[in-house]
Amino acid sequence: MRATVIHGTRDIRFDEVPDPVLGTGGDAIVRVVAACVCGSDLWPYRGAVPTDGPHRIGHEFVGVVEAVGDDVERITVGDFVIAPFYDCDMTCINCLNGVSTSCLNGGWWGADDRSGHFADGAQAELVRVPHADGSLVATPSHPDHALVPSLLTLADVMGTGHHAAVSAGVTSGSTVVVVGDGAVGLCAVLASRRLGASRIVAMSRHADRQALAREFGATDIVEERGDEGVARIRELFDSIGADCVLECVGTKESMDQAIRSARPGGMVGYVGSPNGGSELPVRPLFGRNVGVNGGVAPVRNYIEELLPEVWSGDLNPGRVFDLELPMADVASAYAAMDERRATKVLLRP
Amino acid sequence: MRATVIHGTRDIRFDEVPDPVLGTGGDAIVRVVAACVCGSDLWPYRGAVPTDGPHRIGHEFVGVVEAVGDDVERITVGDFVIAPFYDCDMTCINCLNGVSTSCLNGGWWGADDRSGHFADGAQAELVRVPHADGSLVATPSHPDHALVPSLLTLADVMGTGHHAAVSAGVTSGSTVVVVGDGAVGLCAVLASRRLGASRIVAMSRHADRQALAREFGATDIVEERGDEGVARIRELFDSIGADCVLECVGTKESMDQAIRSARPGGMVGYVGSPNGGSELPVRPLFGRNVGVNGGVAPVRNYIEELLPEVWSGDLNPGRVFDLELPMADVASAYAAMDERRATKVLLRP
Repeated sequence: MRATVIHGTRDIRFDEVPDPVLGTGGDAIVRVVAACVCGSDLWPYRGAVPTDGPHRIGHEFVGVVEAVGDDVERITVGDFVIAPFYDCDMTCINCLNGVSTSCLNGGWWGADDRSGHFADGAQAELVRVPHADGSLVATPSHPDHALVPSLLTLADVMGTGHHAAVSAGVTSGSTVVVVGDGAVGLCAVLASRRLGASRIVAMSRHADRQALAREFGATDIVEERGDEGVARIRELFDSIGADCVLECVGTKESMDQAIRSARPGGMVGYVGSPNGGSELPVRPLFGRNVGVNGGVAPVRNYIEELLPEVWSGDLNPGRVFDLELPMADVASAYAAMDERRATKVLLRP
Repeated sequence: MRATVIHGTRDIRFDEVPDPVLGTGGDAIVRVVAACVCGSDLWPYRGAVPTDGPHRIGHEFVGVVEAVGDDVERITVGDFVIAPFYDCDMTCINCLNGVSTSCLNGGWWGADDRSGHFADGAQAELVRVPHADGSLVATPSHPDHALVPSLLTLADVMGTGHHAAVSAGVTSGSTVVVVGDGAVGLCAVLASRRLGASRIVAMSRHADRQALAREFGATDIVEERGDEGVARIRELFDSIGADCVLECVGTKESMDQAIRSARPGGMVGYVGSPNGGSELPVRPLFGRNVGVNGGVAPVRNYIEELLPEVWSGDLNPGRVFDLELPMADVASAYAAMDERRATKVLLRP
């Protein structure tokens, strides 16, 4: 089969690789119907994370099950399935506690699982899925072509935006600020609307993203950043800030923006994978009773909750994809996101 | 009158000072019935916070109202009242949001209020109280002598322990670890039991404090600290840690202990005023979805909830006082706490 391999900084190739084979009894082989490129894939692409040698990449996909191991019970050949951006068994205590990203037996795409069998990267024609009964969620039937993008967001960005909102305690009537207008930030706007937020501010400087944020439920747009951004947010919310702030970037600057945009007693829900050596500044948190909650989003735990609304078309997170390419053009997909010509690129084999 | 004045490191005196006078219309003069020494009072006592010149000290007291300004409506002369460790109006948006420590018009004992009138330190015979209608809570009648210590804890340590528990989301069935066996930590144990925690671990190395923790509801004691402490905690809780960890110390080491004692998806409630330049380490929080919530405890917002159980004797947080001295011996009270001969010292004028 062919699969995406990163060979080094800005060197993405769609290479011929061995077909995956079943290995553990609990695994499955899925033929990918759609995959995509994540903001975090750009770190090795840009060299911010070094690439020591060629390795598989990609962690978001949906597809059709081609084969299952003897121990698989819930998933069957022919199912259309959504995979989260990691594998998990959904039976260990952490999975049962709702934190499947801390699965005691879980792992990551593009690496060996705990039994030493390889789990393929997701930007590929086929993927071997460990713990198929836990990792995969089958849709009620095969979806229309047009529904695939929204289903694919349940693999990562929609579940991650939802996690930001849940972690910040967004509920009916909450006031919300979303820091970050990437795919996750836009999904966080949509998740906040879904959870009943009364007012949602999207912090964005890009007209197209502002428009989508409005479509997703943003009631206000703030273009300012830093001190000016904080001043504008406080002005919008009784001079004190918002109940809930969703941090969807992961830089020191964006976290600072988030913390200072929360009202005393407010909560920051953060899902932007922290980079740039950011620590959380304790003084402004402690003095104003602003909490920080979140982390690597356990999106698998959210699929059952979100899927019905996506399936019915009530929730349309697939709108975050603004470019679609054949998977063979995966290098162009990375370049488009790197150069900010696209918010998020969908790949079809 | 006489009031406690700190003149420098380890130099605490009970000095003759001017009697307070009403100044704003909304204030009151309270004759102190009991006050106490806080762990945070030891910072300037030990020189960890510099004392530039003599100033009043003390922020926990209960007493009887001697005079009220013309605009005071809820509080009347003769009331027995509890004051939180700060003053607040209980009408601004932050007070209404439950965060009275961020009162838009509030202030601190031993300093001028926002109108420029002095609010006395609490280790004194008399205290001028700004925003008397907001700051003070009157008890149903004058309490028995024996009830005074427990009422006094509502000024700070019981409300602060409760805030740690509330911030960490302690509820019926929660598993809890309390880091810190000072008065606040012990009250956090009591608050956790009251909120329905199913299992409460007190981390303590002192036999007397362990005994009181057991009396307050601790089901387990862990004496180990650091890596050994974390290992012991995880052993007690399914190898993953506790749902809720209450950080009641404020050092880098205690916060590290707390973060690593929480299970994936757990929450740290912290009330130990951070010192020693501690920042919150984002990586172990983000990777395991451990949240951090809390801050300067808005104890005024909790008095109405906690008072009935203290008044009835069901809740006995006053047990944290293990030494009682005349206020004139306040220097001995500081020395006893500094030398760890007492957990918390009560002072009666």
